[in-house]
Order: sequence, then C-alpha cells, then structure tokens
Amino acid sequence: MFGVCYYPEHWPESQWDEDAKMMADLGLTYVRIGEFAWSRLEPNPGEYDFAWLDKSVATLASVGLKVVMGTPTATPPKWLSDLYPEILPVDPDTGRTRGFGSRRHYDFSSPIYLRESLRITEALARRYGSNNAVVGWQTDNELCCHDTALSGSELAGQAFQDWCRRRYVNIDQLNRDWGNVFWSMEYRDFTEIELPIGAVTETSPAHRLAYRRFSSDQVINYHNPMVEMIRQHAPGKFITHNFIPMNETAVDNFALAAPLDFTSYDNYPLGRTDLLMTDAPAEELRRYMRTGHPDFATYYHDQTRGLLNRGFWVMEQQPGPVNWANNNPRPAPGMIRFWTLEAFAHGADCVCYFRWRQAPFAQEQMHAGLLRPDNSKSEAWPEAEQAMAEVALLDIENQPLQKASVAIITGAEGLWVSDIERQGEAYDFNNVQLSYYSTLRELGVNIDFISVDADFSGYKLIVAPSLPIVDQAFVDKCRACNGQFIFGPRAGAKTSEFAYPTSLPPGLLQQLIPIRVLSVETLRADCQEPLNWNSHIYKSGIWREQLDASGSNDNEIIASYENGEAAIVRNQRFTYMATLTNRAFLLDFFQQHCQQADIQTYRFDEDIRISQRGNLMFAFNYSQHQQVLPLDPNVSFVLGSITIDPHGVTVWKI
Amino acid sequence: MFGVCYYPEHWPESQWDEDAKMMADLGLTYVRIGEFAWSRLEPNPGEYDFAWLDKSVATLASVGLKVVMGTPTATPPKWLSDLYPEILPVDPDTGRTRGFGSRRHYDFSSPIYLRESLRITEALARRYGSNNAVVGWQTDNELCCHDTALSGSELAGQAFQDWCRRRYVNIDQLNRDWGNVFWSMEYRDFTEIELPIGAVTETSPAHRLAYRRFSSDQVINYHNPMVEMIRQHAPGKFITHNFIPMNETAVDNFALAAPLDFTSYDNYPLGRTDLLMTDAPAEELRRYMRTGHPDFATYYHDQTRGLLNRGFWVMEQQPGPVNWANNNPRPAPGMIRFWTLEAFAHGADCVCYFRWRQAPFAQEQMHAGLLRPDNSKSEAWPEAEQAMAEVALLDIENQPLQKASVAIITGAEGLWVSDIERQGEAYDFNNVQLSYYSTLRELGVNIDFISVDADFSGYKLIVAPSLPIVDQAFVDKCRACNGQFIFGPRAGAKTSEFAYPTSLPPGLLQQLIPIRVLSVETLRADCQEPLNWNSHIYKSGIWREQLDASGSNDNEIIASYENGEAAIVRNQRFTYMATLTNRAFLLDFFQQHCQQADIQTYRFDEDIRISQRGNLMFAFNYSQHQQVLPLDPNVSFVLGSITIDPHGVTVWKI
Amino acid sequence: MFGVCYYPEHWPESQWDEDAKMMADLGLTYVRIGEFAWSRLEPNPGEYDFAWLDKSVATLASVGLKVVMGTPTATPPKWLSDLYPEILPVDPDTGRTRGFGSRRHYDFSSPIYLRESLRITEALARRYGSNNAVVGWQTDNELCCHDTALSGSELAGQAFQDWCRRRYVNIDQLNRDWGNVFWSMEYRDFTEIELPIGAVTETSPAHRLAYRRFSSDQVINYHNPMVEMIRQHAPGKFITHNFIPMNETAVDNFALAAPLDFTSYDNYPLGRTDLLMTDAPAEELRRYMRTGHPDFATYYHDQTRGLLNRGFWVMEQQPGPVNWANNNPRPAPGMIRFWTLEAFAHGADCVCYFRWRQAPFAQEQMHAGLLRPDNSKSEAWPEAEQAMAEVALLDIENQPLQKASVAIITGAEGLWVSDIERQGEAYDFNNVQLSYYSTLRELGVNIDFISVDADFSGYKLIVAPSLPIVDQAFVDKCRACNGQFIFGPRAGAKTSEFAYPTSLPPGLLQQLIPIRVLSVETLRADCQEPLNWNSHIYKSGIWREQLDASGSNDNEIIASYENGEAAIVRNQRFTYMATLTNRAFLLDFFQQHCQQADIQTYRFDEDIRISQRGNLMFAFNYSQHQQVLPLDPNVSFVLGSITIDPHGVTVWKI
Repeated sequence: MFGVCYYPEHWPESQWDEDAKMMADLGLTYVRIGEFAWSRLEPNPGEYDFAWLDKSVATLASVGLKVVMGTPTATPPKWLSDLYPEILPVDPDTGRTRGFGSRRHYDFSSPIYLRESLRITEALARRYGSNNAVVGWQTDNELCCHDTALSGSELAGQAFQDWCRRRYVNIDQLNRDWGNVFWSMEYRDFTEIELPIGAVTETSPAHRLAYRRFSSDQVINYHNPMVEMIRQHAPGKFITHNFIPMNETAVDNFALAAPLDFTSYDNYPLGRTDLLMTDAPAEELRRYMRTGHPDFATYYHDQTRGLLNRGFWVMEQQPGPVNWANNNPRPAPGMIRFWTLEAFAHGADCVCYFRWRQAPFAQEQMHAGLLRPDNSKSEAWPEAEQAMAEVALLDIENQPLQKASVAIITGAEGLWVSDIERQGEAYDFNNVQLSYYSTLRELGVNIDFISVDADFSGYKLIVAPSLPIVDQAFVDKCRACNGQFIFGPRAGAKTSEFAYPTSLPPGLLQQLIPIRVLSVETLRADCQEPLNWNSHIYKSGIWREQLDASGSNDNEIIASYENGEAAIVRNQRFTYMATLTNRAFLLDFFQQHCQQADIQTYRFDEDIRISQRGNLMFAFNYSQHQQVLPLDPNVSFVLGSITIDPHGVTVWKI
Repeated sequence: MFGVCYYPEHWPESQWDEDAKMMADLGLTYVRIGEFAWSRLEPNPGEYDFAWLDKSVATLASVGLKVVMGTPTATPPKWLSDLYPEILPVDPDTGRTRGFGSRRHYDFSSPIYLRESLRITEALARRYGSNNAVVGWQTDNELCCHDTALSGSELAGQAFQDWCRRRYVNIDQLNRDWGNVFWSMEYRDFTEIELPIGAVTETSPAHRLAYRRFSSDQVINYHNPMVEMIRQHAPGKFITHNFIPMNETAVDNFALAAPLDFTSYDNYPLGRTDLLMTDAPAEELRRYMRTGHPDFATYYHDQTRGLLNRGFWVMEQQPGPVNWANNNPRPAPGMIRFWTLEAFAHGADCVCYFRWRQAPFAQEQMHAGLLRPDNSKSEAWPEAEQAMAEVALLDIENQPLQKASVAIITGAEGLWVSDIERQGEAYDFNNVQLSYYSTLRELGVNIDFISVDADFSGYKLIVAPSLPIVDQAFVDKCRACNGQFIFGPRAGAKTSEFAYPTSLPPGLLQQLIPIRVLSVETLRADCQEPLNWNSHIYKSGIWREQLDASGSNDNEIIASYENGEAAIVRNQRFTYMATLTNRAFLLDFFQQHCQQADIQTYRFDEDIRISQRGNLMFAFNYSQHQQVLPLDPNVSFVLGSITIDPHGVTVWKI
Repeated sequence: MFGVCYYPEHWPESQWDEDAKMMADLGLTYVRIGEFAWSRLEPNPGEYDFAWLDKSVATLASVGLKVVMGTPTATPPKWLSDLYPEILPVDPDTGRTRGFGSRRHYDFSSPIYLRESLRITEALARRYGSNNAVVGWQTDNELCCHDTALSGSELAGQAFQDWCRRRYVNIDQLNRDWGNVFWSMEYRDFTEIELPIGAVTETSPAHRLAYRRFSSDQVINYHNPMVEMIRQHAPGKFITHNFIPMNETAVDNFALAAPLDFTSYDNYPLGRTDLLMTDAPAEELRRYMRTGHPDFATYYHDQTRGLLNRGFWVMEQQPGPVNWANNNPRPAPGMIRFWTLEAFAHGADCVCYFRWRQAPFAQEQMHAGLLRPDNSKSEAWPEAEQAMAEVALLDIENQPLQKASVAIITGAEGLWVSDIERQGEAYDFNNVQLSYYSTLRELGVNIDFISVDADFSGYKLIVAPSLPIVDQAFVDKCRACNGQFIFGPRAGAKTSEFAYPTSLPPGLLQQLIPIRVLSVETLRADCQEPLNWNSHIYKSGIWREQLDASGSNDNEIIASYENGEAAIVRNQRFTYMATLTNRAFLLDFFQQHCQQADIQTYRFDEDIRISQRGNLMFAFNYSQHQQVLPLDPNVSFVLGSITIDPHGVTVWKI
C-alpha cells in the first residue's frame, strides 16, 4: 500500500478538500499527519485546540483515506521550554544547553518532559483513539535524530547515578567491573559518579559503555509509556515509529522497537549517499549521486525489517531533491519508482512519500514533495503512479516474507564498543557491517539482520561482522543450531563490562573455536598488507589480530598473513576472521561459503542487485547502462525483460 | 593624492618632527592618526589627555600635512570593559564572552557602549572639529572585522525582540512570515523570541535572515550617531570609514556607507590571496602569491567605489609582507607601485600606505611599513615615490570617473541567503559574484557594483550573479530601462521573508522571464556535467535548476543540459542562467553578450587586466612574463609601451 | 640495567609472589610502582592504607628486586576533587572545567592541590624513605601530558597577576615591555590583567609569552617542593621524573629537570611515528610504521640526556602495540631488542618496560605488556631477554658517555615563540629542530642537546635551529669559545619581551654576524623556491628572510636565492641561514661543515643510523633490507657483523 506525509496545518483550510481528493485519486491509502503540531494542538498551556485536526481527519476520511496520527513530542512548543527550562538537553561535547528553535530540544532524562509528553499524548489518544479514520499511530518522530540520545545535563547525571545503583547495587562491584583502580578512578558512593564527559583525557571505556547503555535505556523508558498510553486509548490500532538509520540512533533499536506493531524507516537514498561518500573520489560519487549507492537503502530496509522480523513501512520516501545533505542532487529519472519497488522487494508493506506538497517556508523549503508549492505535480508523481500500478500488478504486498538463508548478527553494543575504543582510526562498526552486507548483496543473497537474542535455527550462514560482547547463552545457541558461522575480527573481544577476556579474545567464543588473540594491530586505511587465500593474494588491513591457532587439532588455517601467521581459522562450522580485508576477498570468500552452504549466489554486474520476495525475483540495475541479465531466457518475466534498462527493474517468477 | 597611517603614540616625541619632515618630503598629503588611542586619550575614566595629540597634530601641520582623525572606538580601554562588562560581545557559535586583550571587544547592542562611544567621539570632535589641520575623520576602524557583526549576548537578544516588534508589529504576523507553524516554532509573544543560535539543529531560515538584518541594523544604528556627532562638531570636514571586504562585514554596506562623504578600503592583496586560495594547487597559488590574484584587489575597489558611486580612498595599502594571513609572502618587486596605480585606475582619490614605520612590538610587529623599525626605508619607499610621480604625471586624479557600461548588482541579502541556506556546500555568494566579475574583467570591461536601489539607466548590461530577493519596484525598474539583464541561478528564489515563491522561482522575475524552476539540484564541486551552448560543450555544476520554459513563446532556450532540458533561457532583454558553469563558459558567454550590447571587450592574456579611467586606458600585467599588448601601435602611450614588463603597467590615451 | 612498570593494586595478592619471581628470573633489577594508586593509599580523606603497599614492596624485595616508588599526584581521587573543586583545571581554549574521570585533573596554580600533593608525598616518603628496598623515587607522572601545562582558571588568572607584579614591578614597565599602547591594551594596575585567552582576535605576543613563562614557572613551583619533600625523608635515594617529549610539555624542561638526580623518558616509537607522520603518504608511513622513524626515539633520548647532561632512564619502553595513537601497529620482529640497544647506545643507564602484564580493564586494556592477561609471555619477552644478554655482553652500561662534537641548542622559548607567532603556517619549532637533528644523525654524528646556559667549550659545531631570544651573555659566550656556529632563520629575532629588535634581526647576534634582516616572507610548504649553493640548486621555502649582508667585509655570502640575494651568510665562525631548506641541502651543507670542523661523518644508507658510546660504535638498520655496512672489514665486531639484517644491530669497537 501507499501513503503520504501531510501537514494540514501548513495550508489554508480551503485547500484541504482538494488535497484529499487528489490523494485519493492518486490511489493512496494512508496519510500521516500531526507529528509536529503541538503548538497548534495546545497553543497555550493546558488549552487544547483539536477543532482543526478534527476537521482535517474528517476531510481525509471523507474520501476514504486512512489517517496515521503522529504524536507531536519531537517539537515541544516555546511556552513549554520557557515554563520548564530543565527539559532542554545539554550537548555532552561542549556542555552547552541545546535550546529552542528547531526540534528534538528535550532531554530523555527529564521527568517533567516525560509527564508533559504523556499529557499531550493522552489528550490526543483520547480524542482520536476510537476515531475510525485514524487507523494507526506514529510515536514522536525519528527518535535520537540530531545526536540527541546522549545528554550531558544534570538530570542525566542524576539519573545515571540511579541507573548505576540499580545495575551494580554496591559501589565496590561497580569499581571492580569498571576497573576503577586504574588511575585512582574509584568511587566511594554512587553519588560521586559523574557522566564520562569533560575529563582531561579519555575516560574509562567501561564507564562510557555504561553511559551508552544508560542513555539507550532512557530513550526506551521515555518511549515505552507513550506506546502504552496510546494502546490504552486506541485499542486495536497499530503503533509504529519511524526510525532513522539504526547506527545513527545510538541506542538498542531492538529494544526500542519491541513494543511496536511494526517498524518504519525514513528512506532518503541520495542524502545518505552524499554524506556517506563524502570522501569518495569524484568518479565514484558521480556513479551513484543520483541513484544512491546500491546497498544503502536496502541495508536499512533489511535492518528495519529485522527489528521485529516482520514487514515494515517506509514512512518517508524521498520524492526528489532534499535539503539536508551537503549536496542534494536530483534523483535520476525513474529512481522514485525504482526505490519504491526496491522497498517492497525487501519487505515493505507500505511506502509513504514525504511529503505531499513542498512547503514554501521554514527549514525544509528546498525539500521536494509530490506537488510543488504551485500545486503542479513534481517529477515524483508519475513515478509514484507507475510504482503503484506495478505493485498492484505484481501483487507484491501479498507475497510472503520468507526467512533468508543468510543472517547478519547486529546490535548496538558492537557500535558502542567501536565508538568508545577506536584503537585504529579506520575501524568503524558500521563500515565493517556494511562491507559484509554489501558484498553478500552483490552475490545476490537475501539477508536477515538479527540480534543475538534471535532464533538462529534455519539459517544456513550466520555472519557476525562486529560482535565484541557475547554471553554463554549465545555460545550455547551457536552450538545448538546447524548453520555455518563467520565471525569478523573483535568477536568476543570484550566482556559485558568492557574488559579484555583474561583468557584472551575471542573469550567465550573459544568454546567454539579454540584460538587465542595474541596481539592486535591497527593500520592506517591506506597501509594494507597481503592476505593469502586459495592461492590468491588479497588485502588485509585496518584491524589485524595475531592468532594462536594451536588450541585444537580441528583448527584449520584457511588464510594467512604474509609472514605465514594465521589470518582466518575454521573449526568445523565456525570460522574466525582475524582481520579486515578488501572487497575482492569478501566477494570470493562469501561466495565460496555460500556455495558450500548450498546458498544460491549470483555474480552479475557489480551494479545489479537481486532480491527475492515470495516467489518473485527482482533485479535492480543501479548502473547507467542497459544490460542483459545472465538469466535463463525461459524464466517467467512479470515485469521488464532479460534486457534491463539503466535504473530499470526486472521481475520474474521462481 | 597620497597618505600614510601613523601612530605617534607608538614613538617617542623626539621622533615626531623628523617623521613629519620625511612624510612631507616624500610628497604625502594626508596622515591618518588616532584610531586606536583611547587608552592614551582617556587614561582613566573621564580624565582626558589631549596634550600629546595636540602636539602631534601640530607637528604634522607644521610641515603642511593634513590629518585624518580616527575615532578610537574599535579599542575600548580595559577600565571601560571592567566598569561595564556588559559591553563585551558573545560569540554566537560557542556562547562564550569575547573578552579584552585585542580589539573590537564591544557589542553593537550595548546602549552603554553606544553612550561611551559617543562621549569619546564628542570629546575628540569638539577638540579637533575646527582644527584646520584636521581635514577629515575616520569612524572607528574596520567595522565588523573579526566576525563581530553578530553577537549572541543577552543585550542582543533583547534588542532583537524589540527589532522584531517594530518590524512585524504583531506576533501572528511574525509567525506567518517566518513559517513558524513548521516544527511548532510559534511564539505567543515577542518576549518569547530567542536568537537563532544554540538550537538542536538548524533554525528557521526566516529567523536567521531576521537576525542578520537586525545585526546589520545594529551596526548601522551604532555607527550613524557617531557620524552625526562628528558632523555637528566638525562642520565642513569629510567623514569616511575604512571598510574590510564587503562580504566579510556581513552587513548592508550600502546602508552603512550612506552617511559618509566617501568610502575607504583597506587593500591587502597578498593576505587576501593567501586566504582565498587556501585550497588552490601549488602551481596556481605560486602564480599569484607575490602579486595577488588579478581580480581580488579591484573586486573590492570597484565595490567600495560603488557603495556611494563616487571616488574612494585606499585608507590602508599593503606595503610589504603582512602578518595575518596563513602565509605572508613578500610582494614581487614593483607590486607596491602596481597596486597603487591600479587603485587610481579603479577610482581611488587617495592611497594611504599602512603604515609609516613597522612597529617593533605587539600583534603587528611582522607587518611591514614604509620604514623599518631601524628607520631605514623599506622596499615600498621607492615604489611609492615612483607611483606618486606617475600619478602626478598622468594627472589621474583629475580624470573623471565615468559610468561603466556593465553593472553588477550586489547586496548583503544575497550573501545572507547563501550563508543561511547552503543547499549545496559549494554554492557561495561571494564565489559566484567573484567568478562573474573576474571573467568580465578578463574581458577588459569596466564594472560598476550597484545595489537594487540604484538607477539602472545608462547601463548596457546589468548582471545579477546572486539576487535571491527582489521586490516589485525592482521588476518595474528592470522593465523601465533599456539594458540587457543576466540573472544567475537563484534569482528571485526567495520572498523578502525567506520563503519559496508559491509561483515557484524566479518569483517576481517571472514578469520578466516567464519560466518556472521545477526543481533544484546541487552537486559536489568536482562532479560537473556537460552544458551545451553554441555547439560547444562547457560545464554545468554546483547549482543546477530544472526549468519549465514553456511559459512564453518569446522564451528562447539558448543553452541546455546534457538531457536537453533548458539551462539558460532568454526572453528579450532578460536572460536567466539556471546553473553555475565553468570559467570558459562565462568568458565566451559574456563576450558574446557584450558584443551584442556594443560593449568593447578584449581577449588579452589571461593575466592582463585592462581598466579605463576618463580617457586613460591602463593595462596591468599580472604575469611573470614580458608581453606585447595586442594594441594598435599608433595608440598614444603615456606610460610604458606596447611591450609590457612582468608586473608592469602601460597607460595610453583614448 | 633493566626494569619494569608494575601495578600490584591491579592484581590479586595471590599473584604477587609469582610475579616477583618471574621478574627476578628474567633478570630485572628495578620495579616502578605506586604512581597512580592514591585512591588505594588514601581511600578516604586522611585515612591512609599502606599495608598493601608494604606487602608489595616486601614481596619484590624478597627476591632482590629494587623498587622505584612513584608519587600518585597525577591522579587525585574523586573525594579530593569533590572536597575542593577548585583544584580542577580549565581548558583555556574553551573555558570549560576539565573534570574527574581520567588523570591529570589538577591545576598547577591551586594552592590547595599543592598542599594536598605535599601531604600525600610526605606520607609516602615518610613511610618508604628509609625502606632499603625502595632505592629511588619518581615524581608524579608525565607532567604536562594531555596539554595540562596551561590552565585558564581563575586561580591561574590571579597567580598570573602576582607573577606579573613580581616580574615587572610596576605596571608602566609591563605596558612598555608588552607594547600595550598598541590597540589601547594598557593596564592601569596589575589587578586588571587577564589571561590572554578568549579575546576577540589575537592577543599581544608579549602577553602570551608571559603566560607561557608563567605557566612553566607554575609547573616548576609545583614540582620542586615535591622533590624537596622526598629528599628530606628519603636521603640518599635517587629522584627522577618520567618526561614526555620535550616539545609536548610546553615548559622549560631544563628548569623542571634541575632538582632531579637524573631524567627519564617514556619511549613509544610507534605511537609517536603514527602521530607525527599523520599526513605522510602511505608509502612513507609504511616504511616506518612498525619500526618507528629512525630519528624519533633518539631525538628524545638525546634531549632527555641533555637536560642534565648525564645518563638517563627509559622509564617506560613500548613492548608491543599500544592503545593511544590513531593507529597502533605491532612492532616489527626484533624491534623491542633494537629499541633497547638503541636507548643504551644513546646514554640510557636503565630501560624499564611498560608494563609487566597487559591490564584487562580500563583505558589501556589494548596496551601490550611483557605478559598477556592470560600470563603467557608476549613477543617482547624473548626480545627483552636477548637485549639484556647483549647489554651485559657488551658491558654497555659501563661505557662512559663522551661529549659529542656537535651540539644543538634547544629550549622552550623557541617553541613558545613559534607557537605564539606563527607568521607562516608551516613554520614549527619542533619540525625545524627535528629536521636539523635528523640530517645530522643521517650523517652519523653524535649530538648533544644543550641549553643557552650550557658550557659551549669543547664542541666543534654548535647548531641553533630556532633560537629567537638571546641575551648578551649568550653572545659573549659564543665569542669566547672556538666552535663553529650555525644559526637557523629567526635567530635573535625577538627581544626577551617578544619585541622586534629595533636594529632589526638578528638583534644581538649582529655582534657576531653584522647582517640585517630587511624583511621576512613565509610561503606555503608546497611553494618552494630555488636555493643556490656550491653550484647546485636546492630548495628554499616556508620561511625566507631578505638580508642586508653589507655590514662587514668579512661577511661571505655562501648561498643565495634565485634573485641573487643572500640566503646564507658566514662571518668567520658564525653562519646564519636566512631560510629553511630541503633535506638534501641540509645533508650536503652539514656534511661540508662537519668535514671542515674535522668531525667524522658517514653517508650510509638513509635508514642506517650510527651511534657511539664510549669505544663502542653501533649501527642500527631501520630498513627492511639486509645491507652490507661500508666499513673496513678489519674493524672489531662485537655484535653482529658487517652484514646487517633488516632491523638488525651491529656493534664494533674503535
């Protein structure tokens, strides 16, 4: 299904009828509204005004549209932060209060803001909970966007002390767990604990990991009551939240998603590509600047789907140039349709375009919509029409989401460890995970992102690109299932309290692969060294561990460094990669693994991506060249053909 | 005429006589003094000491020198900021008070500082207003230098609220004008308004534009009373101010200049070149590091002249290496003379060298003067002598300033819009304007910089490189005159309150060229695309608009993008460029336009610049090579010859 | 002799016996302990606990190990900064207090912290001063590390006023000395003086030099009483301090070292190399990333030795990958042994490895030790064993330290001047000094680093790479000795109060070489110009002075710029280089000078370094290739041979 993001409060009421009619005519089902409208819903403290929203909902409903109601807590009005200045967050890097004037100016540790958020949420939920036109709810908006997960406020400091008290119970335990004897960092009481910010030099990584866990909990503890409040007053309606990229929330997204009915994602492929390829050479960026990198959109689609392991929504879909990246190109012709089909291929149940009409004022006036400010239809319009027709034709939405053969284990702790202990400037959790994902996708395999708590059974291959912290339950689960496991470097390298395993890394994973990491070296990204595998020479770089693989006769050294030392060791179903490598290696290596695990792979052009949903196979051509797909000509094409246009899509049945 | 900047307070009185004698012997007319001497003029609160200045003025007058008296408000003494700490400005980026210890440590929004400034100015003006030796006055010094136009102080905040109250009268108007419904940014009262700083993410562009306008007004409201005070006590004497580069003041320079008799500029070609070419490859920088870029000095000369459309002064002329750029090369031999002649060619009435003698102490001890600290004559001395003789010989000063055929429309609002809404990281108001100016100058045409309020009549070609905000009066004026107009991209793209025109850009300019900007894309600077014009392929990049040119049969598509879409559209006298281009295009394009408008152009070597003053034509050779000018050998040379030396100047009569 | 750094408080007591035994078995003599243990020594205010330390000392002593006791003042415990928040320093760049959570969180200007530091030092010194097992003391740890020499606190501000009052006695003197008439910066009283931080633009260089001198004095005034306290209670025991690189302390290291018995240095060649070669191309960095740059370790060894002109200790020697550089490679095989021998060759009396066992917790858990956390021996262990055997075999420690033929004059004032007045972005005191040192080292000459106060007699060649401030005593001393002098650019360029000499630079040095610096230009590093010497063309760049060399008939222009102007001038024994040059020039130039001064030089491979200690000659091969040393085959090899392995060491007798 399809939807659109709409802000009735931005437009004269006289326009509302016509807008609704056009939406319905286009074939949209859903309209998301309300999520930034607090100052209109409560213009003065305690003085609610729902009349305009009543009317807007009624107008939309009158043509059969279904409303997704957003709660407006991302934008507390001026009077609220004036009444309660303590709701404002503090930038932990500078110590400066982050004030009013944009959005997300609230502190997750403020009890007053939680109370006020629940109050407006309750008022809204009471008003529209049983309104038939309102079929679902979105909480807040893009939680943690603009680096707001962490606050350095006094309220955060106090809440952190309480959090520590609950977790560690007594201060000696905390001192031991954090290794505070080092540099005389010992506390005598929980009230002495400060946030790990503003110190002379780096603070203890255990202290910082606790702060990250605490901050994640604060987000969840703020969000969960909101979900409950809506549930209470809007029984039977769905509740979702529109996530930003999982690595940018800086929180445990699995936990954040837990109370939701399904997850949503805001998909802006060009903005992401511009930001993530900032340092790319011009010839590389030009290749993707108007299409997005072939793996950036699906990387987040697959993660969003994985949070609850069910269909998700694209709550906001880029419809043209945006305003917030460093450079904001126009999508290549056909890309709006392309991205839409791609989202459905990766498990979307609904795609909503952001936004209905380009706003001619304020921060996002350069952000395209389906309509231009003069009400003309933008380039996205016919592409959306085409995509809607094709989705209907293919009946994609009714294709079941099958379990993938390959899973990638992800989670916030890997990100936090990488943020906290860089060790090598080029080791970055997200880059590592993305490089593994991207090569597997170039091989055409479907991928599920799973947490350490997932059910591993059924997966033929489970890859853990960066999994520093594991527990015994995880080890037991690995043992209990039948899949192949590939662990990237740093797996098991930290205890739950950010200590080095005294048995040496990979710590608990030694039960699966009896190896010892003797030392770790990190190299500048441009200083790579040879890696020998299968009689070919690849590259090893950035992170390189020295292994002792003598711990078991079953340990098989399958790749080695130039000096002959073990670089990748396999023990039965478990493979440990002691180093990061180049892309060429990952492609060949994963292909071999997939073949051994009986997983179908493809080696099409590097800019072609293959995705499966149900019995539909999709090919997406990210290149600017027409190509002939190396398929059996007898396959049953249902969209496009064996010849795929630049930025084209071909679908066949299996 | 010629002058020098002099600081008698820096030297023993015993030196003053000899200094004055040498100045007179050199042939100088003017001596600027006093502008940083507050701590000597008022060593303790209310306790004035004019004796030393009386004596200094008398000493200079005794040999016939004329004094330009600077008011010392750029350097409030320590006791003043100690008595009134509220005069100190606040850095809006960090929230930190900017303290004593250098200069410009005052807040334009401080009523106390305005009062104190008027007090010292009055004292000085009363003392020297009718002194015959003091022929003119300079207000303050380099207003807004060191990024001081904007302050984030509480005083600024309060003044901003008052300013908003005056401009918008009621808060609903302001909320509407700023689009505050977006993200619940609505205010209930003017007292709720904050400065647009320190927010979680970007604030509303309308809010920021208001802050820029307010800040500009604050500078002017501070400056104007000072001018009035001097006028009152020094009737008949001229009043000027020494501007820094117009784009660096961050204010409306036309308004700032309005009450002055003429404008002045502080000309440091090498420092500017080092800073502006920071990212240039070595081979490019080396070409100009000792001469300055061929268009950097005149770019500001022409703008300074344009502020009041009359002759200007170079109040400070670089005489050798300076101290404040990242790298400070020695001018190539001959450049002091070269820059001096160049300034006169572009309308200077007087050139004053900064400074008389290199100060052997404090911040500028590495800044050259006409004399070295040991009283020996620096390299600049003979070059100044030569320039003075040549200016006299040519009688340049009596050559009338003629109106140019080509005008460039400039103004602070274009700069503010570009600062506030980057959209593409490489779009920069000043770079755009400079690239247009520089190519026109390479074609040898004289250029007037004019404001939107200027009289357009008489110009054959009017170019608006970056003019996002226009009003109906402007449109009417364009219609009423006969010149050709060329608008760069973004023209008319914003309403006066920083909104997107609902009729789409170019908004009001659609009355001149009925086109619609359908979308805007921005590209990284190194990702250029083809531009087709006149059967040649040039480059389009950075900022690219998609046009609908179907609005009029008179619309002529004269250049197009690779996909055939319109890139430049002409309608009668009005041409709209929807994209930024490369320099090669601008050269060919402007040349064709000039030829069509019957404006003489030249295509000499790229490092030769041609300027006209009255009936004198100047050629300046910025290259390191001797060249033969492609002139009719029968022209009447009055300086140099058809063969022009490296860094040489040739002048002929027309 | 050899030692190790040990933290008994990090390990269970049950481990101590075994640790001590293993240390003794390895052949270690010294164990440094205690320097971060304040929270264990005084867990609550005034409540000491020495029992554990008594036991630890006894355990070590029981196997014959000697203890070096560190005072724990680098890590005040939490209760102390909670009781007295005024001990926390303030970052002068941001104005933010630097809080608890890591180390060095104290302000050198806090009288309370001095009192508390003396209290804990006294308690420790009383307890262990006469303990026979404790043979020496280390004060604090890495003073000034993490940029802690400068504080912007109120306490620092007050202390600075007092310091100024003592130095300048009356405010008029200070105003004159600082040139405060410039920009009305004059003070009426010492109480008006602020720290030179947070001003609108740059503050007076004289003000900043005073702040640097003051800050240096504060460090020394904090440190000296600690040394006295230990002396009082630990008579006959040695006292040392472990320095960080001399240019990173930002203080007068000669003064800081003065009360010590000998100096120590913490030697981490790979971390230094990664940081100092951050901008180096990959091929250059790869060459040294696992060995360290050939001159980085000895550059600091020689400086450390020079501070007291006697044997020094390496108190911390890198034993494997570290954790704190941007990238942390593994040392190439053999480098631990190599660095150890190198330290002894350059005058070390003892090398202590840091640390005994890799700590599995807190900030340094990725820092290697002699043992891994699982008690296995790391790669460093056998290399340390080898080094110990070889040092014993060669009897290096009993080889006398001979005076070198070549001295480099160093000192904090050159660094301060370069920090304060950049003038050219690429002029950097340490880079200049290092480039001179490194080329002399490539020529195989031993070098003494000396201060301006040293005895110059006996040196054949004295090089002053960057010596802006000199006094008459220095000039007289230069005259009185017989050595050759080479002064780099900027020599004598500042008075003691950071003024420009009114006789022009080189100021007082004009007595030795009657030249005048007419102007100074600085160029971007990649914009070099030709330099003519000995009929060859080299490069001149970054800093270039224009000279008048006509002041004496004995002035000999020995190198010149492209335009023929003097670039290097010699007058008898005194040579003045008016420009920085490329490495090729320095090599040829210094070689000629050494030959003329009868100093033996070598031109081996560029990665071979030759060092002499007593009658032992060492060759160190930093390259990855085996080489044959161009030696007389009849020399008496005592380690290795004429064929030197990659990363190998050859020693012969002379």
